[in-house]
Amino acid sequence: MDYLKVQREGARTPNQPLQSQKGIVSKELEALRDALRQFAADRDWDQFHSPKNLASALSVEAAELLEHFQWLTEEQSKGLSSEAKLRVADEMADVLVYLVRLADKLDVNLIDIARSKIARNAEKYPVDKARGSAKKYTDL
Amino acid sequence: MDYLKVQREGARTPNQPLQSQKGIVSKELEALRDALRQFAADRDWDQFHSPKNLASALSVEAAELLEHFQWLTEEQSKGLSSEAKLRVADEMADVLVYLVRLADKLDVNLIDIARSKIARNAEKYPVDKARGSAKKYTDL
Amino acid sequence: MDYLKVQREGARTPNQPLQSQKGIVSKELEALRDALRQFAADRDWDQFHSPKNLASALSVEAAELLEHFQWLTEEQSKGLSSEAKLRVADEMADVLVYLVRLADKLDVNLIDIARSKIARNAEKYPVDKARGSAKKYTDL
Amino acid sequence: MDYLKVQREGARTPNQPLQSQKGIVSKELEALRDALRQFAADRDWDQFHSPKNLASALSVEAAELLEHFQWLTEEQSKGLSSEAKLRVADEMADVLVYLVRLADKLDVNLIDIARSKIARNAEKYPVDKARGSAKKYTDL
Repeated sequence: MDYLKVQREGARTPNQPLQSQKGIVSKELEALRDALRQFAADRDWDQFHSPKNLASALSVEAAELLEHFQWLTEEQSKGLSSEAKLRVADEMADVLVYLVRLADKLDVNLIDIARSKIARNAEKYPVDKARGSAKKYTDL
Repeated sequence: MDYLKVQREGARTPNQPLQSQKGIVSKELEALRDALRQFAADRDWDQFHSPKNLASALSVEAAELLEHFQWLTEEQSKGLSSEAKLRVADEMADVLVYLVRLADKLDVNLIDIARSKIARNAEKYPVDKARGSAKKYTDL
Repeated sequence: MDYLKVQREGARTPNQPLQSQKGIVSKELEALRDALRQFAADRDWDQFHSPKNLASALSVEAAELLEHFQWLTEEQSKGLSSEAKLRVADEMADVLVYLVRLADKLDVNLIDIARSKIARNAEKYPVDKARGSAKKYTDL
Repeated sequence: MDYLKVQREGARTPNQPLQSQKGIVSKELEALRDALRQFAADRDWDQFHSPKNLASALSVEAAELLEHFQWLTEEQSKGLSSEAKLRVADEMADVLVYLVRLADKLDVNLIDIARSKIARNAEKYPVDKARGSAKKYTDL
């Protein structure tokens, strides 16, 4: 994990961007980022897109996604109709859009941080202890 | 998958939320998806990962992201310290992880739906009407 | 307060969401409101308590409440241990605290609006149509 | 705080309800609770009202409340129009409704837990240290 290595080496200056310089890049996510930049610039919406507001919007969209599932059983949630799935996918798109936009504003490399997080979770939840358990790692 | 069938048959109506027939793929997101599949399989966690539960978890992580901003002014949110940014990025990683996992379970192509959403938003928020306004499209 | 003025003048339309002219008051909720006012004044925290920030905080606490349930089955959620119930109750307290604080800032009578909401929901979800169905009223 | 006293004395049995028997009661909240019980019974909705589902619904309503504020500045959020305030109050009603319903299902006394929480927060945030600071108590 380059990301963890950077931390361990203490090589960050206070204003250094979070991502590693060489991090792994998804050109498709970069294309989304660029489309969203253009979208906001065309509408003069950057004034509304503070990280605080984007985090609110992301949270609201995540709740709208959850709304589709709130009265379903878990089993029902596994067998959505194609129509329901389209509505759910629509909310997922909103979540991704705000996540990419926030990552752009904060100069965060989404792929790098997710890879790093999975690696750290693998340490926090060792296979032998976590197997079949929904407990939080602090309770394992 | 009825959902994919609809796509293949090109049977979409004018409100079709999804876009391409063949789908644009981010191999980096696919690698995350595969890593998360393995992570869950190793721990026998698929039993907990119903779409309903994943949507809850995604929403919880989005709120944990928001928590970092809740008492900041918008200006302060634009000037996070590198330490605060690391904590924020950590929550963003959790959001992406659950989003990718949910997309896997529902067989949703994240890049496609986000591209499609941006295209539809461009229609809902025409540049001339939306310029500089935070109004919802229904109020434009 | 325009809002109260509207109430006093009886100028409501058929969609009026609020109910009584004089308002039903819970003296226990008023005591909470007063304790929270004092708490904030003592700490000079009113500067942070804009309605926008309080709505964020309320949403974050609601998600922390949800977190306790996210990996439980519905059945498990009905049989919480007393220890788990204490943790859950703790998050519920946070939700109520921010709700009361926001109601104070916006001069909203919580009891009145909840009574009014139940009355309107009774119209939106007629017993004969809604019986045993989790559908949204627009789909009944 | 009777609530804390009960904890300290270790007088709880594993299945003992959370609230103190003598707790402070708001008869207006009890009237809401009873109205909601009747509402659910009339529609055979208890089957959907597991604590897990109610916590989801509460979280979704809190996000709908937040949605009204997401693009506003803090100053704007302090000066809502009476029309906007009615819409906001409507979402606050939903939050209270689900909170009361969940408290009923879990046998939690909302007034008691909120009073207890305020008392504990007063200890966590001593006036001299917390004055004018938005820091979390762990960072004071």
